[in-house]
Parts: sequence; structure tokens; C-alpha cells
Amino acid sequence: MAATADLALAEPRSSPVGQCAYCHGEDGIARDTEVPHLAGQNEKYLFNQMMAFRAGKRPHKEMRFMARNMTVQEVAALAAYYAALPPR
Amino acid sequence: MAATADLALAEPRSSPVGQCAYCHGEDGIARDTEVPHLAGQNEKYLFNQMMAFRAGKRPHKEMRFMARNMTVQEVAALAAYYAALPPR
Repeated sequence: MAATADLALAEPRSSPVGQCAYCHGEDGIARDTEVPHLAGQNEKYLFNQMMAFRAGKRPHKEMRFMARNMTVQEVAALAAYYAALPPR
Repeated sequence: MAATADLALAEPRSSPVGQCAYCHGEDGIARDTEVPHLAGQNEKYLFNQMMAFRAGKRPHKEMRFMARNMTVQEVAALAAYYAALPPR
């Protein structure tokens, strides 16, 4: 709860990056080895995967929930954001 | 056909990296923007995704075919190989 509240304070309401950062890192480098790094990943790939999670075509409970709470514009912005970050 | 034949010649029979490289790059950097880069990705994530493709839990026709033609040992070796490559 505390961590979630901190993320909510740190990020403007319109940006869902804080929610992604919890697992994928603010810098797009995941600390959990079962979670993919997103930094420097292909923007189109990231966008397509988010849309696949959203539609349930790529099954993942948490990612489906996250993606369904975003607009297509927010998904596109996130894909562009993480693709632009430098990889490790 | 020519490209496939070249890959087959370039890689020893026991290594399936040549097949991956066709889409993901020999260096793990995909040229097609709809394909994910694999270089430097988390090894466990790569392994888990390959097993998910294999079982059909993550739907992808081509990846399912590729993964089904590999042993678990080959999948593990590929995950380790791509995870160890430097990202862009």
C-alpha cells in the first residue's frame, strides 16, 4: 500500500509509467529476473504486446488488467517511452 | 530459400541459434521492429517464454513450431546465449 501510494504521488495522474515501473523499473530494467527489461525494446513490439494483453490474446492476468485501464494513446506513449530508454 | 540454406550452412546442426537469428539477429538485435530484441534480456524470462510458446500458452505459430523442435536443454542454452549478449 505504501509503495503504491508513493508511486501515485510521484507520477502525474495521466501517466501510467509509475504502475509499469513497479515491475519493469523506472529505467525499464526489471529487477525480477522473470520480468522482461523494456528499455530499448522495439516500440512497435511493445505496443503490439500491450494490445495483445489488452485483448487477452497474450494471456497474462496482471498485464491484461493494466492494459485495460489504459487508452490506446497511453499504450502508445508508454511504448515510445520505454523504447527510447537506454538498455543496460 | 537461399537465406535459409545459408543459415543452415553457417550453423552446426546441433545449434538452433541460426534459426533464431533469422528474425532476432545473430547479435540478438532484431531488424524487424515488430520482433523483440533478445540481447541482454533476462535469461529466466527468455526461458519461460520459450516454454510458454512450446506449450501453446503464449500463442505464436512460428515460435511454437521453433520451440517444439528444441529440447529443454537447447531452450536453456539459447536463453543463456541471448541473455549474455550486450544490448544495443
